[in-house]
Amino acid sequence: MISEKMKPLVNNNSAIRAMFEEGNQLKAIYGADKVYDFSLGNPNVPAPAEVKQAIIDILNEEESTMVHGYMSNAGFEDVRETIAQSLNRRFQTNFSAHNLIMTVGAASGLNVALKTILNPGEEVITFAPYFVEYGAYVSNYDGKLVVISPNTETFQPNLTEFETKITAKTRAVIINTPHNPTGVIYSEETLRKLAAILEKKQKEFGSVIFLISDEPYRELAYDGAVVPYVTKYYKNTIVGYSYSKSLSLPGERIGYLIIPDELEDSENVINAAAIATRVSGAVNAPSLMQRVIMRCVDAQTDVSYYERNRNALYQGMTDAGFTCIKPQGAFYLFVKSPVENEKEFCEAAKKYNILMVPGSSFACPGYVRLAYCVSYETIINSLPYFKKLGADYGL
Amino acid sequence: MISEKMKPLVNNNSAIRAMFEEGNQLKAIYGADKVYDFSLGNPNVPAPAEVKQAIIDILNEEESTMVHGYMSNAGFEDVRETIAQSLNRRFQTNFSAHNLIMTVGAASGLNVALKTILNPGEEVITFAPYFVEYGAYVSNYDGKLVVISPNTETFQPNLTEFETKITAKTRAVIINTPHNPTGVIYSEETLRKLAAILEKKQKEFGSVIFLISDEPYRELAYDGAVVPYVTKYYKNTIVGYSYSKSLSLPGERIGYLIIPDELEDSENVINAAAIATRVSGAVNAPSLMQRVIMRCVDAQTDVSYYERNRNALYQGMTDAGFTCIKPQGAFYLFVKSPVENEKEFCEAAKKYNILMVPGSSFACPGYVRLAYCVSYETIINSLPYFKKLGADYGL
Repeated sequence: MISEKMKPLVNNNSAIRAMFEEGNQLKAIYGADKVYDFSLGNPNVPAPAEVKQAIIDILNEEESTMVHGYMSNAGFEDVRETIAQSLNRRFQTNFSAHNLIMTVGAASGLNVALKTILNPGEEVITFAPYFVEYGAYVSNYDGKLVVISPNTETFQPNLTEFETKITAKTRAVIINTPHNPTGVIYSEETLRKLAAILEKKQKEFGSVIFLISDEPYRELAYDGAVVPYVTKYYKNTIVGYSYSKSLSLPGERIGYLIIPDELEDSENVINAAAIATRVSGAVNAPSLMQRVIMRCVDAQTDVSYYERNRNALYQGMTDAGFTCIKPQGAFYLFVKSPVENEKEFCEAAKKYNILMVPGSSFACPGYVRLAYCVSYETIINSLPYFKKLGADYGL
Repeated sequence: MISEKMKPLVNNNSAIRAMFEEGNQLKAIYGADKVYDFSLGNPNVPAPAEVKQAIIDILNEEESTMVHGYMSNAGFEDVRETIAQSLNRRFQTNFSAHNLIMTVGAASGLNVALKTILNPGEEVITFAPYFVEYGAYVSNYDGKLVVISPNTETFQPNLTEFETKITAKTRAVIINTPHNPTGVIYSEETLRKLAAILEKKQKEFGSVIFLISDEPYRELAYDGAVVPYVTKYYKNTIVGYSYSKSLSLPGERIGYLIIPDELEDSENVINAAAIATRVSGAVNAPSLMQRVIMRCVDAQTDVSYYERNRNALYQGMTDAGFTCIKPQGAFYLFVKSPVENEKEFCEAAKKYNILMVPGSSFACPGYVRLAYCVSYETIINSLPYFKKLGADYGL
């Protein structure tokens, strides 16, 4: 009874669900504190206190029919203007409310962007390792996802291969920085080179290629690392943002798209994106949370919490003999599996109650992802077991 | 730069936007209280007090990481179970959490249902007049919307024509009760006949035809009218519900799908619908609002407010000589235009600062829709102008 398009998604989902259920089983048997579950990217830092206060103030100060009511499909104008001004202050950009579409999180934002610009059969390029849902999003609009193989030295994008894979059918490129699952931040140099390739190929094919920058981890950068603002490097950039991680609101589904004036045919693209938000069924981003963002536009999650976790896990894993690059941002550590088949490695880790996600799930076999948005204690307590696990593989 | 599929939607949208902007212009010139804007279905009754209290209680009593966090794509299990039990109490159904998928409003619910079951080229039937967005939703999955012409005597569905339009390609039928734009409630007799036709045609074609019941207006029924629960009449029914109108939360995007155990292949359909919710980009229904529904499952909007409006507007319009059936539910009055071209009639009404939506927007020309989710004063103050408008047409 399931549509043909949903069938592979249903089949593929079973494996993820099996892992999730296995984790719950382990916790039931051994107790949650004896299971080292690094599988999920669900922030464990609570939303900043400003969020709670903002909600209460809104309920006391603003009209119910406005707070919970319909607004323009693009979102409340004052909310969008406030975010635009905040971005302009922080990144010396030049946005106004007009350039923002409030979305049901970044996932919905990417879907709105793709629905707006993508025709069946057109190609969307992304760089392995990548968030596996990109494939489903592109397939929603009958596009074809083209995957560039990983540069496992630096996990910066493999631009040499990228250049060869751009065709007349390439409609968009999706990047993700700071990056899930490697924690890499795309450097200014990377973005300049990437933009130069896109400019060249646009000329060569007489086409427009959109660069979609998926940025839910923008605020999670460590050691003072700068996350360059992508619209400054390439004019046909659409930014997808989410407050899921920056304000620990993943369940609330609140984010936005930036569509700059410099983008080709921007007036029409902005207009169509608002309509795409509506007809996709979202209609608009959740209204109360939009009002919350207006009051919390400069609030921040406790980045130092994740940074302490990163330091402890990176140190512990390298001490145990594992190979990994030190994440500059996000909350993931991407570790080289000591054996080629990393699924076997993930299985072996379960005997120490350690749960990790195989790199195959990110089109990058031979690696595993550890999500360190867990308690510090979980990390500290897991390290002796990682040491044993490493020893089992002769590390 | 817009995808081919979005282009007609963008073009079509301009007319609606023009009307919206014209309304704002009139209000700027004459003052909001001198403009009788019956064009929008945005509830003007505030959310019940229980909603505000529930939000504050949740923020004080529940964990931030849970309230604002990810949960199963289908929604929080305790929320779904609470809704199921409430439905069982009210409608003698037999649902459990398992049968519910929390959705980003009813619009998203319909999209999830269609994404789950519809293949390109398959047909979805609906009855004119109908909510125009159904066309966009069906086209999202490359289906074909087949429209049954209206029965303008009763505005119950035209079942004779319906039976002739069902083919081997018919995958689903969308009904909406209480009905936008007529206020009709589909009677038990209608549902029995409709179900009998579907059963017969399923046998004839060896197919499964899903009945999707779009029910955002379920709680808005007047004079003690009963809104039959559709799953009891036809086993392959999927219900789409929203709290937009029942709790005046249209901007919050919170609703659910019911997929009963009796539905063909229900286990797979339920599973696929949860995945469809995720990959469509919604991921899950907004989390805080889910928790609110759990605490407000038996809260109600002030139906008497809308009923008073209905009575005043229906009486006033019939007194002014217009022809319309008395709405049993929802908050719309569907009025016969005194001239065949109802767009001309809508234009003429603007000279009295009256804004109405042409029936053509619901595939039912010759009629106009008045949304009476406005203040009582707006209705009372508009009636002398409707009288003049009627007189202009010799009523």
